[in-house]
Amino acid sequence: LDYQHVQVPFEITLWIMLASLAKIGFHLYNKLPSVVPESCLLIFVGLIMGGIIYGLNDRSPPVMDSDIFFLYLLPPIVLDAGYFMPSRPFFENIGTILLYAVVGTIWNVFGIGFSLYGICQVKSFRLQDVSLLHNLLFGSLIAAVDPVAVLAVFEEIHVNEKLHILVFGESLLNDAVTVVLYKLFRSFCEMPTIKSVDVFAGIGKFFVVGLGGVLVGLSFGFTAAFTTRFTKDIRVIEPLFVFLYSYLSYLTAEMFHLSGIVAIISCAMGMKRYVEANISLKSHTTVKYFMKMWSSVSDTLIFIFLGVSTIGENHEWNWPYICFTVIFCLVWRALGVLVLTFFVNRFHVNTITSKDQFIIAYGGLRGAICFSLVFLLPDFHRKKLFIAATTVVILFTVFVQGMTIRPLVDLLAVKRKRESAPTVGEQIHIRFLDHLLAGIEDISGHWGQYYWKDKLEYFNSKYLQKILLREYDQPKSSIVLLYEKLERKHAMELAQAGQLGHGLAHPSFLCSAFLCSSSDRTVITDQKLEDTPNPDVLDNMQEILARNLYRIRRTGPAYNRHTLPGDSEPTERAKEILILRHKGL
Amino acid sequence: LDYQHVQVPFEITLWIMLASLAKIGFHLYNKLPSVVPESCLLIFVGLIMGGIIYGLNDRSPPVMDSDIFFLYLLPPIVLDAGYFMPSRPFFENIGTILLYAVVGTIWNVFGIGFSLYGICQVKSFRLQDVSLLHNLLFGSLIAAVDPVAVLAVFEEIHVNEKLHILVFGESLLNDAVTVVLYKLFRSFCEMPTIKSVDVFAGIGKFFVVGLGGVLVGLSFGFTAAFTTRFTKDIRVIEPLFVFLYSYLSYLTAEMFHLSGIVAIISCAMGMKRYVEANISLKSHTTVKYFMKMWSSVSDTLIFIFLGVSTIGENHEWNWPYICFTVIFCLVWRALGVLVLTFFVNRFHVNTITSKDQFIIAYGGLRGAICFSLVFLLPDFHRKKLFIAATTVVILFTVFVQGMTIRPLVDLLAVKRKRESAPTVGEQIHIRFLDHLLAGIEDISGHWGQYYWKDKLEYFNSKYLQKILLREYDQPKSSIVLLYEKLERKHAMELAQAGQLGHGLAHPSFLCSAFLCSSSDRTVITDQKLEDTPNPDVLDNMQEILARNLYRIRRTGPAYNRHTLPGDSEPTERAKEILILRHKGL
Repeated sequence: LDYQHVQVPFEITLWIMLASLAKIGFHLYNKLPSVVPESCLLIFVGLIMGGIIYGLNDRSPPVMDSDIFFLYLLPPIVLDAGYFMPSRPFFENIGTILLYAVVGTIWNVFGIGFSLYGICQVKSFRLQDVSLLHNLLFGSLIAAVDPVAVLAVFEEIHVNEKLHILVFGESLLNDAVTVVLYKLFRSFCEMPTIKSVDVFAGIGKFFVVGLGGVLVGLSFGFTAAFTTRFTKDIRVIEPLFVFLYSYLSYLTAEMFHLSGIVAIISCAMGMKRYVEANISLKSHTTVKYFMKMWSSVSDTLIFIFLGVSTIGENHEWNWPYICFTVIFCLVWRALGVLVLTFFVNRFHVNTITSKDQFIIAYGGLRGAICFSLVFLLPDFHRKKLFIAATTVVILFTVFVQGMTIRPLVDLLAVKRKRESAPTVGEQIHIRFLDHLLAGIEDISGHWGQYYWKDKLEYFNSKYLQKILLREYDQPKSSIVLLYEKLERKHAMELAQAGQLGHGLAHPSFLCSAFLCSSSDRTVITDQKLEDTPNPDVLDNMQEILARNLYRIRRTGPAYNRHTLPGDSEPTERAKEILILRHKGL
Repeated sequence: LDYQHVQVPFEITLWIMLASLAKIGFHLYNKLPSVVPESCLLIFVGLIMGGIIYGLNDRSPPVMDSDIFFLYLLPPIVLDAGYFMPSRPFFENIGTILLYAVVGTIWNVFGIGFSLYGICQVKSFRLQDVSLLHNLLFGSLIAAVDPVAVLAVFEEIHVNEKLHILVFGESLLNDAVTVVLYKLFRSFCEMPTIKSVDVFAGIGKFFVVGLGGVLVGLSFGFTAAFTTRFTKDIRVIEPLFVFLYSYLSYLTAEMFHLSGIVAIISCAMGMKRYVEANISLKSHTTVKYFMKMWSSVSDTLIFIFLGVSTIGENHEWNWPYICFTVIFCLVWRALGVLVLTFFVNRFHVNTITSKDQFIIAYGGLRGAICFSLVFLLPDFHRKKLFIAATTVVILFTVFVQGMTIRPLVDLLAVKRKRESAPTVGEQIHIRFLDHLLAGIEDISGHWGQYYWKDKLEYFNSKYLQKILLREYDQPKSSIVLLYEKLERKHAMELAQAGQLGHGLAHPSFLCSAFLCSSSDRTVITDQKLEDTPNPDVLDNMQEILARNLYRIRRTGPAYNRHTLPGDSEPTERAKEILILRHKGL
């Protein structure tokens, strides 16, 4: 027996296997996951495993290595989140998200830090040796909402898209703030005196870390898109580039002390559109599937490790400090959301309701990022207290808040996500309205989101597409692209021979379709003659559209991390096809 | 800048990136890969990189770590090989393959070992200090044909299926023999005296190592199949199990000093059928795609590392020894193939032609396995000579034989692989003949391959399927399964509305189809009443088949490692669909 030789890969494989089997186990009993979130169950499994290890070895089980977490477990989850991020609601609410992520997190850090310092002054608690700086350092790691925990809970409760993106976007983008504040306070702790220059340098760092991350991510994303231009002859390695470049963007950002999370998200969002157009359909399925698989395993492992690491003798149980940490986390977050939303609502027509505010405040779950950061703290005599407090906060938010948020959403009747994707008609009208609003903004001289979106779209079709797409002949009008996409989907899904609907589409529908089809608004105003499609092509297209847009196809909702859209049962489908064919004859 | 922190994953990612980009680079110039095999180009890239590293650092570049090779690079390639192994030709020729793999390898080991020992006795070569045991040890590592090198060359030259499976199967199954002989001689080298008991124990080990590998592989394979019964609700982690279980089977076999290659191949072949039936179509696409991608990257990395490791000062250039090694490798292999084939041909109707024999002998390429084994040798004063000889043999076989084998195949007009897959009619007739031959063998009392195949099939449908398949209601007749598969494929590929052919299939065709449809031959003879399908179902099926088997669909050939079958251009397809729809109206 030669165990030493294969130990590393063997144990890694076994851990992943355990995680996957645990997942299967939960899903065998359908009722369990509908009451208790999976994250709680997984932490529970971890606790049991940790208990077993502790019992057998009589020493603390190994804690999750922070390097393993940040280098191997976190990137797949963030990549998945970035790649499947619904870009429209994200960019529509980017201002609000940034406000929550930056100002909100700073508010929480200082709020929690200062009030805990206040608690430390109470003599009977015996905490007078914890300095203000250490409290602020602790605040900086405990204040940040955790994307993994948020995702794990919110994907199961199906709240409306805007609410989801507000909480989830915040949890992703606050990484830049957390990184800066954490490192700043940690270096302050080691400095003898703090000069005001250092504080200003810290503020400057926010922008460097955040914008640097975006820059690194976008450059890797565009390189990835450019690379996939040349993979036509070797389709099998296409999916690799998506993973390699995004991982490189994360590592590069980490190497330069920038925000890796921001980098990988920008990379994924930047490349998605072009990569999808360049790679083959099967490659794309593989990319999507593997991303989901990987993130789901990472996420499972993280929660199990969280459970395992909780067991042991790393903790100093000073209950006043721990209880007040939990209370301050809740109170400062609630206050922050209230105040910030007040300002946000003053500048928006589509306001955030008080129910939504409650869910945003309540959904501020903490998770493995805090946990890894607290273990990365330099050794000092109160580290075990911080570890204990962090553990309790995480368990409290994941178990208590995670388990009660679903009943609360039901009770408050928070607006849910619509189950069906928009129909073709709706999509066309949305696009039409976008053009219209961009025109109105242009005329009124207001540079709003539609103006910028339109400019970006113009820049994209004028320059980026030419460089990054393989088969770039001329800018295809968006309606043709949409039609192609639907047609391809249809071909994949249904082969219902002879079941063509022959009804003509309503004229107004066609009309609006053709208004949009001249893809760029600027085309209409400025370059009418240059870019107008050939009349033959137009006629041809009109006929095809009129005869074939006969059925509104419902596509699956885009969010859930554990299923792919349109993932129905193949045998079901095969059966359906058989029946339809049979009827057709 | 914090490079230390991210070094390991960063460098791994960069190496993979380099490998992928090199692959893209070769395919940009279409003429290059058609003349020079990719493996040669990759070794060449490796040589250049090694030269650069050597030039910059002025010391030998790092050699490929044997652990990395055996634990991380080899398994994906073997898994891919096992999973996509065409099982019919493999089992039809299993006797011949085993003869080549076991007897042929032993023949080569002793032939090369003893004749090199003879060379060592020539005084002017100054090699008298190399003992017989060391020569045999060297023979045991240099004799084995390498699956990675064989696959890289043979997949490009498209010889007929039988020839391919003979060479490739041998290269895979000789692993058991190589492992045993290599370890035996290595332990003999360290023993003071060798008893005859040790020799007999060595012979016994063959069976343990080989059959143990099969056993480990099959048990993991069946466990994998069983696990996928329960993944209906979490489709995304299905592909994971295929990879996890096969990797575990490899690691477990290695742990017990069994043949890991044999284990992973048995695992893949054992699970394939059941896993495919249990998992969703998209999961299956992902499994296939990812396997191909992974093996293709591993293979690229291996050849690049081979090139890099060649550069340096690890070599002792004793030219007589090296040249005679190359010559003996060629001569003993040629002799071995001639002698063994003589015996094989006496017992087979379908003989191996002399052209085929030449290609089998000439296709005995050596590769990274020898290279890793020679570095694993214990340190002794002639190790560098063995390294030099191994390097030259590998480079000679990969470059000279690899580059000339394609012209030779053309020159000799070796029978090529048929380009198209068998049609539905052919498939049905093949199956029908199998049943017939099994019956004849049964009556004549000859227990041949058809007899065993039939027994296995019976055991499978009677017991295994019930345990391992999720939706196991009753044994579906094979013709229905085939039809379902084709129908599903058709649904995926073409959505050509209203293009149904209405011609009835020929009666005799239907007749043979229904002869086969009573899936088990034993059903006809023994259990006629129990398993005969319901007459309603039969009528229904008859009608469906008669109307829908209207077009013989050609499926892609099954072999090539770098493309998936039916991987045509989606835009092409979409265009075709558009045109057909249009016409249909």
